Amino acid sequence: MRVIIFLVILCCLSIPVEAKEKPSAGKFFQDVDKTELLNQVRKFRKRSEHKIISEFIHLLSIPNVSADKKNVGKNALFIKKEMEKRGIKVQLLETPGNPVVYGELKAPGAVRTLMFYVHCDGQPVDPSKWIDSQPFKPVLRPAKMKAGTRVPKPMPLPAPGKPFAEDWRLYGRSTGDDKAPIICLLTALDAMKAAGIPLRNNIKFIFDGEEEAGSPNIGPCLKKHKLLLTSDVLFMCDGPAYFSGDPTLFFGVRGITSLEVTVYGPNISLHSGHYGNWAPNPGVRLSRLLASMEDEQGKIIVSGFYDTVVPLSSTERKAIAAVPGFEKELQELYGFCAAENPGLSLMETIQLPSLNINGLSSGWVGDQARTIVPATATASIDLRLVKGNVPADMVDKVVEHIEKQGYHVVYEEPGQDVRLKYPLLCRVRRSEKGYPASRTSMDLPISRSVADAFAGLPGLKPVMLPSLGGSLPIYLFSDILKVPVIGVSIANYDNNQHQANENIRIGHLWRGIETFAALLMMPHGMGNL
Amino acid sequence: MRVIIFLVILCCLSIPVEAKEKPSAGKFFQDVDKTELLNQVRKFRKRSEHKIISEFIHLLSIPNVSADKKNVGKNALFIKKEMEKRGIKVQLLETPGNPVVYGELKAPGAVRTLMFYVHCDGQPVDPSKWIDSQPFKPVLRPAKMKAGTRVPKPMPLPAPGKPFAEDWRLYGRSTGDDKAPIICLLTALDAMKAAGIPLRNNIKFIFDGEEEAGSPNIGPCLKKHKLLLTSDVLFMCDGPAYFSGDPTLFFGVRGITSLEVTVYGPNISLHSGHYGNWAPNPGVRLSRLLASMEDEQGKIIVSGFYDTVVPLSSTERKAIAAVPGFEKELQELYGFCAAENPGLSLMETIQLPSLNINGLSSGWVGDQARTIVPATATASIDLRLVKGNVPADMVDKVVEHIEKQGYHVVYEEPGQDVRLKYPLLCRVRRSEKGYPASRTSMDLPISRSVADAFAGLPGLKPVMLPSLGGSLPIYLFSDILKVPVIGVSIANYDNNQHQANENIRIGHLWRGIETFAALLMMPHGMGNL
Repeated sequence: MRVIIFLVILCCLSIPVEAKEKPSAGKFFQDVDKTELLNQVRKFRKRSEHKIISEFIHLLSIPNVSADKKNVGKNALFIKKEMEKRGIKVQLLETPGNPVVYGELKAPGAVRTLMFYVHCDGQPVDPSKWIDSQPFKPVLRPAKMKAGTRVPKPMPLPAPGKPFAEDWRLYGRSTGDDKAPIICLLTALDAMKAAGIPLRNNIKFIFDGEEEAGSPNIGPCLKKHKLLLTSDVLFMCDGPAYFSGDPTLFFGVRGITSLEVTVYGPNISLHSGHYGNWAPNPGVRLSRLLASMEDEQGKIIVSGFYDTVVPLSSTERKAIAAVPGFEKELQELYGFCAAENPGLSLMETIQLPSLNINGLSSGWVGDQARTIVPATATASIDLRLVKGNVPADMVDKVVEHIEKQGYHVVYEEPGQDVRLKYPLLCRVRRSEKGYPASRTSMDLPISRSVADAFAGLPGLKPVMLPSLGGSLPIYLFSDILKVPVIGVSIANYDNNQHQANENIRIGHLWRGIETFAALLMMPHGMGNL
Repeated sequence: MRVIIFLVILCCLSIPVEAKEKPSAGKFFQDVDKTELLNQVRKFRKRSEHKIISEFIHLLSIPNVSADKKNVGKNALFIKKEMEKRGIKVQLLETPGNPVVYGELKAPGAVRTLMFYVHCDGQPVDPSKWIDSQPFKPVLRPAKMKAGTRVPKPMPLPAPGKPFAEDWRLYGRSTGDDKAPIICLLTALDAMKAAGIPLRNNIKFIFDGEEEAGSPNIGPCLKKHKLLLTSDVLFMCDGPAYFSGDPTLFFGVRGITSLEVTVYGPNISLHSGHYGNWAPNPGVRLSRLLASMEDEQGKIIVSGFYDTVVPLSSTERKAIAAVPGFEKELQELYGFCAAENPGLSLMETIQLPSLNINGLSSGWVGDQARTIVPATATASIDLRLVKGNVPADMVDKVVEHIEKQGYHVVYEEPGQDVRLKYPLLCRVRRSEKGYPASRTSMDLPISRSVADAFAGLPGLKPVMLPSLGGSLPIYLFSDILKVPVIGVSIANYDNNQHQANENIRIGHLWRGIETFAALLMMPHGMGNL
């Protein structure tokens, strides 16, 4: 099968794509009433809302912090059971960490295989920050929680058969990131089955249990099961949809790496009265160091930081220009009136590598503050990378910058000899978990075919982004499986991803079901062969 | 009594001090064999070491974090009981916070009253930082814990009659700050009684239970009991002795005030991939702001920061010059090779106001780090003040500096309207607890008389400092009680005051007993009338 497809691709590539594709796609689409199929899916959802949400709550109630192996395993088993109920052939691909749940569903006569990737693990939780609820005890609220307004009280689910309003929100860890695509995919299959819509494509599923921990085991797993995991396109289902609320297709993601920087003062924290402004204060030194990394216009002034960025293609630039600006709304939503980089739109900003302070810590603040010269000051920093940036090289540039500020950089806790030798001393911990950016060309036939799958569908016009700002280990899939990867985002942008009070808007969940149904039903347009 | 003293002071002041004082003091000292008295005290201590340390451990085992009213109350009752055992007339002076333990002991025929102030409360504790012990379960160790070497294991007390080595250390909260003077004072009285040394001075005691909380109630308490609390000199017993190990007399302390500065990013922390380097990062903004407050030579560059400093007198300047430098040893001990201000000695540095970052906090670091743009970044800052600095004015200068950096400063959590109006937004919390510096002239007769009390005593030559770097609410005593205040410090300088693993060196405790005995036995030299 792969050989045939490969030969056909070769043929296609020798012919101008525009001329070949459009009529063929048109011909194929004429014989399928997509709108009617979508209506069937919507009808199914409307009569199943209580059941869908109940099942989702069940899934969300299983704690899923990546490091919590036991509970992530329970998530895997729950998902496996739900897939098997739907006739999907499932196996757990074991790894040294959390298992990958793999499933496949063959369509008789299908010549194309679509693979869906979702992750079932979540970011760490700090329950003290969750307002009026618990991360793993999901609650439905009649509206979004908004800073400065009364918290909408949790409400019971409506009785079976009664509708859920689109603006209601379900709060809980991984509601948006990234369990929503799981429930939407399974429901889309249910809806198709209930409506008697036959599968047109072979379908494969991968549910990763370590994405939020940087997917340390997915690479070896993909390599080991390479033959099992063949497909024609991989849909990476993660991330928030664009601010407009429309489902979002993204053709790339940023890479990520990180480092932690610790600057030293005295070897124990000292009384600030006896030693303040004499013993070196690590807080002011760290401040000076961090301030030297970014100018007041938001430009990262670490030497060479932007040098390796691969420029965008004209299609990509056009796509960015076509994305409607939401900066004003976002600033209002998030309560600030000036972005870091006043010269760039948000979409332009995320096409560049970033250097971002995730956290600062030194001594104590607030009620715990004590009058000391702290021993250390630490900043945790992440770098988001774009095509062309090599993770380790980008960290090197930051380390070189630190050295240029006069610091001696060490990678272990410095001993007394080192402390007494270097006036400015900085420990760097480099992340082991980084990975590069990834970008599928928007000019590929499969890219155009996916776009066509949505053409003309009422209320389901996707936003198309050359790259998402967030990071996913897409490079592993594209490198190891040699498959074009296209991202699918369905969660509301204000889902508090990675944060306390994560949530999904009910309407976005419904659109997610329809989005996956549209992809599952994708006809065999020539464009994707 | 006060009127007579006042007239005598007036007479003394009209005569050149040098000419009047020296012969008189000499005459008085001739009729007292101070060395023999001190030997008696030493002998008593040597045969009572087990009992002294056991009693001290009992006192240290009562938790005493200022905010823990119940337990600070228990400390007060324990101290009261121990005082009463020694024939001291005790009363608890109630305050809206923790009570002050007041005691007095009259000496028949005495014409002078010495008052001793000690505080019995302690700084907050973070038990997780205490190595191999608990803050309120004191342990004896055969040596000091030193970074990078094996932790000396806790040891049982030697049997009664067996000696304690001078280099042993007792670890526990308030061993150094500030329960050591309590046990030393009580033991000095025991020793004098055992040796049949009569009291020459009336003695008064004040044990404060809220010093580490800024002594919010001591002022009204002193005012209320002003007549009860008359004395000729107040010894403020606190702080570490000078690095040479000698007991230390200090004639001043720095004042203190503090502020907390919070800089705002988005109103919730945001995913750094989707928003990093677009949404304003409060960490980098706070860094820039803090870096703007101090130059690389340790000078605080907040406008006018040094303008109100009262210059030192020539006696004070000479005293500072006479203090042996310990910078090299301290840098070695505390593991750094460059002080903040390379042009000044430590003693010179603490004669200036300081601005010191006590703590930084934003998002998370370490294992808890997550890839976000944090919502806020906070720095807690203390200002140590010298004579001439008004606490509120010094905070004003810092606030003006923040405004000069383009910030809009608020004092409450900013609402949406304020957030959307000001690109740079900073919330300042001003401390309510600050107080000014205090300095007793080293040229006063009483100052010279106290110095004389130690003259010629073997192994007990005190270091004399115009001002300690730390802060104590001395201004209250000197302002309300109109009494000269002189500080007495006995704890080892490396006692980890305000920190985890606070400790007292046994030898310092023994010297403390002798120091207080010397003060208690202070003869009626003309110098102090």
